[in-house]
Amino acid sequence: MSELSKRRIPCKVFAPATVANVAVGYDILGFAIDGIGDEVVIRKGSVPGLVINKITYNSKKGLSKDINKNVAGFAGLKLLESLGLEKEPIEIDLIKNMPIGTGLGSSASSAVAGAFAINEYLNMPYSKKELLPFVTEAEKLADGSYHADNVAPCLLGGMVLIRDNATLDVIKIPTIPAIKAVVIYPHVKILTKDSRSILSPNITLRQHVAQSGNLGAFIAAMYHSDIKLLRRSLEDQIIEPQRAELIPHFDMIKEIALEEDAFGFSISGAGPSMFGLCANTMVAENIEKRVKAYYKKQKINCTVYISDINKEGAIRY
Amino acid sequence: MSELSKRRIPCKVFAPATVANVAVGYDILGFAIDGIGDEVVIRKGSVPGLVINKITYNSKKGLSKDINKNVAGFAGLKLLESLGLEKEPIEIDLIKNMPIGTGLGSSASSAVAGAFAINEYLNMPYSKKELLPFVTEAEKLADGSYHADNVAPCLLGGMVLIRDNATLDVIKIPTIPAIKAVVIYPHVKILTKDSRSILSPNITLRQHVAQSGNLGAFIAAMYHSDIKLLRRSLEDQIIEPQRAELIPHFDMIKEIALEEDAFGFSISGAGPSMFGLCANTMVAENIEKRVKAYYKKQKINCTVYISDINKEGAIRY
Repeated sequence: MSELSKRRIPCKVFAPATVANVAVGYDILGFAIDGIGDEVVIRKGSVPGLVINKITYNSKKGLSKDINKNVAGFAGLKLLESLGLEKEPIEIDLIKNMPIGTGLGSSASSAVAGAFAINEYLNMPYSKKELLPFVTEAEKLADGSYHADNVAPCLLGGMVLIRDNATLDVIKIPTIPAIKAVVIYPHVKILTKDSRSILSPNITLRQHVAQSGNLGAFIAAMYHSDIKLLRRSLEDQIIEPQRAELIPHFDMIKEIALEEDAFGFSISGAGPSMFGLCANTMVAENIEKRVKAYYKKQKINCTVYISDINKEGAIRY
Repeated sequence: MSELSKRRIPCKVFAPATVANVAVGYDILGFAIDGIGDEVVIRKGSVPGLVINKITYNSKKGLSKDINKNVAGFAGLKLLESLGLEKEPIEIDLIKNMPIGTGLGSSASSAVAGAFAINEYLNMPYSKKELLPFVTEAEKLADGSYHADNVAPCLLGGMVLIRDNATLDVIKIPTIPAIKAVVIYPHVKILTKDSRSILSPNITLRQHVAQSGNLGAFIAAMYHSDIKLLRRSLEDQIIEPQRAELIPHFDMIKEIALEEDAFGFSISGAGPSMFGLCANTMVAENIEKRVKAYYKKQKINCTVYISDINKEGAIRY
């Protein structure tokens, strides 16, 4: 076992919220945003093993402190087990800034914060990419499926393509520097599991061809910084039509975003959050203003984030 | 009507063979190869209108000389009609180097040669991209479906992504300079229409996710010149398993190609041709040698082309 002298304290990390699926990449595409995410603080523990000392909530409470049930603890545990350090005395505080069930990768954010913090504390035995199996395993605790389209961008930052979820083969795609994301979270409840079960297990070959053309073009647009191509390609023909009904007034919100000149607009992850990509902050703010006014009339609370595409992913600070 | 002084003679063009689908991009991806393609020669005609004077065949004969039935003539006719020049006296010779029904874009090659030659003859009223509607319309004559995954790379060269076939929204993707294509054409007959009808109209969402991951990674690999990623991504989980049975000994030929270190190996277009992408000519030649020997034992004739990815597409010479 490593010596305490190799531990790094104080150790405080931040792991950002993420937008998965990104209209054209169901289960294989995601990007990180700024301004919202979970935090973990690490201390040397007083008893052997990993312990969750405290969870601070920004909204609704209710997460387990059991490290086998809490994704932050579980991701950390998996990492420690891989090193034979499961008896290492470690205490973590989870600062749960993100509400749960938003479609913004709340569980991914906690999982990444947990594993990343412990990796930093242990003086980085793993690279960021090597943490992926631990955090994806933990993510599976939360939504029952082994997929990295939230955890990978949360960890690595930027726009991340997951070639293959089973082997965690992930590729960072460049992004167009100027673009802004506008992310809208209406305060209604959708469970990821429900949002998955609503999806038909089959699609038509025609839908596949159309969606593939848009995915390919979206990626090419990112490499070429081709905003016109991005505008033509950012459209979900498969998942959005099935899930839109779960989100109150989705069609109207999308109409507002496109009227205000978003390049495209769709559902973030399993919803209810939605995202748009825009040419600049002004466009994003115009969307924010109109969407807030609209939802206010409908007596639905919502939170809007306007953000660059986060380049760093999880950071120690 | 324009004056004869604006006509360019002599006018002789070449339009290359193409590999469509490229494992990961059914109906939306194609590339051009060197060394095989159709040619068209243009002369001023002696009577009003477009006339096919002669078709020279390299293999089996049997194409119509009726400009409403011959794809080279039909593509040219559509171009002329768009300019109000359908009475222009033009005679074309079609040099049909490509056998028909190979899966190497034989009809696309003729269509592109026809329209490109007439455009050149008319002193280029259209850019290459603007010729796409005429050649895609002609391609539809041959296989009943409006799709540009052969005509677009044949015309433009390189690796071409078709975001949307209906609007002919095409994007040239960079290719990794060193890679070679090995293309194997076993001399057996498959009709494109049959090869389309064998395909199930539905796929699973899981297949879509897997194939999309590979498509995205394939495109990223091209931009990054990442040969390892290309190797991991060049795999067709949807079309190849359904069509492989139409091609004699497909599994064995693929096994040979992968044993000899092709990055990936799959069906070219609707088959029966197959293609592999390789790191260099040596790999391609090793595949050629073993495949030829194998097919010889099976008493099946085959032709093998080893080629760069053709960068130019249709050319006047």
